[in-house]
Amino acid sequence: MTDTRIEAGALRAFMERAYEKEGFAPEDARRIADVLMQADLFGIESHGAQRMMYYHQNIASGSVAMHAKPEVLRETPVSALIDGHFAMGQITAAYAMEQAIGKAKRMGVGIVAVRNSSHYGIAGYYPLMAEREGLAAFSMTNTGPIMVPTFGREMMLGTNPLAFCMPADPYPLWFDASTTVVTLGKVEVYNKRGRAMPDGWTIDGEGAVCRDAAKMNASILAGGLGGILPLGGEGETTSGHKGYGLALMVEALTGVLAQGLLAPDMCGAHGDHTSHFFLAFDPGMFGDAAHIRAHMSGYLARLRASEKMPGHSRIYTPGEKAFEAQADRLANGVPVEANTLRELREIASALGIESL
Amino acid sequence: MTDTRIEAGALRAFMERAYEKEGFAPEDARRIADVLMQADLFGIESHGAQRMMYYHQNIASGSVAMHAKPEVLRETPVSALIDGHFAMGQITAAYAMEQAIGKAKRMGVGIVAVRNSSHYGIAGYYPLMAEREGLAAFSMTNTGPIMVPTFGREMMLGTNPLAFCMPADPYPLWFDASTTVVTLGKVEVYNKRGRAMPDGWTIDGEGAVCRDAAKMNASILAGGLGGILPLGGEGETTSGHKGYGLALMVEALTGVLAQGLLAPDMCGAHGDHTSHFFLAFDPGMFGDAAHIRAHMSGYLARLRASEKMPGHSRIYTPGEKAFEAQADRLANGVPVEANTLRELREIASALGIESL
Repeated sequence: MTDTRIEAGALRAFMERAYEKEGFAPEDARRIADVLMQADLFGIESHGAQRMMYYHQNIASGSVAMHAKPEVLRETPVSALIDGHFAMGQITAAYAMEQAIGKAKRMGVGIVAVRNSSHYGIAGYYPLMAEREGLAAFSMTNTGPIMVPTFGREMMLGTNPLAFCMPADPYPLWFDASTTVVTLGKVEVYNKRGRAMPDGWTIDGEGAVCRDAAKMNASILAGGLGGILPLGGEGETTSGHKGYGLALMVEALTGVLAQGLLAPDMCGAHGDHTSHFFLAFDPGMFGDAAHIRAHMSGYLARLRASEKMPGHSRIYTPGEKAFEAQADRLANGVPVEANTLRELREIASALGIESL
Repeated sequence: MTDTRIEAGALRAFMERAYEKEGFAPEDARRIADVLMQADLFGIESHGAQRMMYYHQNIASGSVAMHAKPEVLRETPVSALIDGHFAMGQITAAYAMEQAIGKAKRMGVGIVAVRNSSHYGIAGYYPLMAEREGLAAFSMTNTGPIMVPTFGREMMLGTNPLAFCMPADPYPLWFDASTTVVTLGKVEVYNKRGRAMPDGWTIDGEGAVCRDAAKMNASILAGGLGGILPLGGEGETTSGHKGYGLALMVEALTGVLAQGLLAPDMCGAHGDHTSHFFLAFDPGMFGDAAHIRAHMSGYLARLRASEKMPGHSRIYTPGEKAFEAQADRLANGVPVEANTLRELREIASALGIESL
């Protein structure tokens, strides 16, 4: 798999052209492109341009409601419940986080639950919107079924990521992780490369460790028994029950709280009809915001400077790799994999827009 | 190690007698006893009566401020910052959660950050206070240094537990877990039993896997290099960086936000001068509370009924084991280990109170 480096501005402009031509309003096209670009800039290729074909097909099939607008169903000064009406997840989620941010700026905190959304890209995009306003924030989403519970072999939970951001310098504490041990994307990469997966990632339909990425990928997509293990692995010895519990916490705060679909009722591993949870709050309620920010920055610096394992020259703080990748990609272009580039050109041809 | 079953009411009364005689006001003695009893009833012996000798010594040494009262330093309708002034953690933490609950009932949500507290018992006690009022809630605390960051070998983070509770029937979703793969208590148990630890729990000062519980226990207490791994284990293959990130999220929301001590600056693995974070909110802001509760309960029931791994007859939902243990202990008494019982009798003798 060879990558082509594409200038970031050119890639962004292509995405915006594509989504405008798909029929989105210019500001919505810009938002979708911005979420995808953030993933590619952060080096999370699985959620960047690579997803454009998936979205293109969802739009063509009608599983995304093109002209739907998110609707506030209930509201208090500190909360909102939003129905996404199956619009593109990025549009609904950004709108929801804007509501949470506005409430946090007025009241100190805002919590927004969303149902009937769709795939919203990287969970960590939305807390960054709050961080730019000096706020701390959470973002969570449920997804289609992919995780087996501890002692189970039926996919009853999603990857259910949890993202959190806290202001700091030179970059924030930025955490964005699924509560599975790995995401489907990792299984797909091992499948494409024909490599055996490490122990502790997945179990098959009989409950045995599964290292066969092709078999697991097919089984997950078919909704068979077996699936990806929770963070912490199989059983309780290395605390797989904690990853399972975290996933369930995310499900409680998304599908349950928003009264939307739950993971096992969604169709397919990516999961449409997802629910989200956003919480933003102002650290300045608890003290001088600059002092708290400096306290955070100082601790992160100490972590990076602490004693390394032999063979390792760096300790990363959450988000550090992403912000370093962003600096590289802004300077040197975004690596786009050959298959993805071919897909982008197919999209350009189908839409009749200028290609890359 | 043989256990004696002690009638729950008798054990609770003993605890209350002890803390009153230590010099606490009756309502404070009741609170400390209630937190300890909840741990013992839930089968979390490490945090129940077993901790009484540790607290007794902390009180004797003056490291707990007997007559300190938690003080609200800053407040908004949705938030408070509290200084614990080194009072017993249970007293400060319960007071802080009461503030969060009051704000959640008036405003929909309450966030309370606490600094200069001390060991507060099981993190999951406090969300249950909110759950009894129909609220959902979080509780987090930092602790003394015990966890090495991913690619590191210096204990820079605490066990940093995260607890969450969401109302449901017949019992709530109750999640309470450290963000380390295991707690120090597990290492101590393996040490006492002379057993080798599983791989993936700890690394020694050279960064090698350590199965020697005696060596690791001594090293942790001495503050040497090496320590307990994050949830997810060593390196990034099974996503140890996620457990490390979760621990750092907890540290950001406790020590950083409350502007208190951070894990590496605390003395000893248990950690005094801890900081806490509490958040309570009303699910009723997002819809009919009874409907949301039923949605949660239904999902938990489906998880329990889903396909089991061969050799396993049950899938537990978070908290289920604890509530089942509580039913057993209320009916049949609380198992108290022989060494712990001896310690309780020493405390009775030292305080001159009626023993068990």
